[in-house]
Amino acid sequence: MKTLRVPEATITRLSVYSRFLEHLDQRGIVTVSSGEIAQGVGVSPAQVRKDLAYFGEFGTRGVGYNVKDLMWYILKILGLDEPWPLVLVGAGNLGLALCTYKGFNERGFSIVGVFDNDPNKIGKKIANLEVYHPEKMPEVITRHKVRVGIITVPSHAAQEVTDLMVKNGLQAILNYAPVALNVPENIEIRNVDMSTKLEILTFNLSKKEL
Amino acid sequence: MKTLRVPEATITRLSVYSRFLEHLDQRGIVTVSSGEIAQGVGVSPAQVRKDLAYFGEFGTRGVGYNVKDLMWYILKILGLDEPWPLVLVGAGNLGLALCTYKGFNERGFSIVGVFDNDPNKIGKKIANLEVYHPEKMPEVITRHKVRVGIITVPSHAAQEVTDLMVKNGLQAILNYAPVALNVPENIEIRNVDMSTKLEILTFNLSKKEL
Repeated sequence: MKTLRVPEATITRLSVYSRFLEHLDQRGIVTVSSGEIAQGVGVSPAQVRKDLAYFGEFGTRGVGYNVKDLMWYILKILGLDEPWPLVLVGAGNLGLALCTYKGFNERGFSIVGVFDNDPNKIGKKIANLEVYHPEKMPEVITRHKVRVGIITVPSHAAQEVTDLMVKNGLQAILNYAPVALNVPENIEIRNVDMSTKLEILTFNLSKKEL
Repeated sequence: MKTLRVPEATITRLSVYSRFLEHLDQRGIVTVSSGEIAQGVGVSPAQVRKDLAYFGEFGTRGVGYNVKDLMWYILKILGLDEPWPLVLVGAGNLGLALCTYKGFNERGFSIVGVFDNDPNKIGKKIANLEVYHPEKMPEVITRHKVRVGIITVPSHAAQEVTDLMVKNGLQAILNYAPVALNVPENIEIRNVDMSTKLEILTFNLSKKEL
């Protein structure tokens, strides 16, 4: 695979394309044009072609793309041709919601360990998983070959959890706490801000009032 | 305010800038350069200047921006100089997590009504709010002048809830169900996909193996 620097916006769109292709495949559709993909997901056909061009030649001029082939190719690009075991730290409401979020399983993600340092939570079950004390993290990470951790603790505890995840060998962290975290340069980290999309809505509504 | 078409990526970054400015303000810092903002949030200085230029002239050459002024101006741009009451439909784990999500309150969002059609949930309390049957939605929307709704029901119920929200006069919808929803053209809708950022991580990790 090329090692070209691919913009994150492209990766995000690939994810959207692959869901759309899955939807077509389920309906028994065999081929699709870049124009149809574009219309289906709300971007321009040129954007679809440009995004796919990062990864080589696809499709046949005048015929389009084979739905199944393209879908699998994109999943492979995204690294989703293999299962991804995850650990999650923070067995609160959000942690519980993520453990039962169907959108994860559909993409091959499975949470294999849930941790919390609250004695009232340790030993309880969340979606068939027992909540463990964080000291059991190394054992779970080794057993399931986990590379990615999810943080759903309150902001004040997030850096400590991050440091623990890095110490235990995790390579990537998805952070839901509304706080910026420090990690070594070789660790991938992304923050999920639950309110950013709300602010796009309020921006648009505010304009309408004027 | 200009009615220039502003890219959503700019709105998202404005949101990030405003949080960074708030952080500076709390530490008593009075002025900041575009370079410092850029470094603080991880974009280029040119990007910061370009994003702000959509909304007119800011800052003084050689001096930079006044932190408080710029922060308030951005909040005003985002429509966050006023409180935003919200209704939420779907009193499951994710709904509960959002009702107690501190990141909402910090930005002026407050959930004023929670609805579910599950008889086991109606009447229960979530974060000081009683869960109501959806038939009470019009009353709550009118009383609190709500314009924005949040959907946290399972995928199969999401379109029905959307239609109900539109019928009850909501103007914008934030959808957490992993499904595409149909709305009239005058309704703003955004989907929050909880797994997209995970896929950016897995893409990056997959590349590292090669």
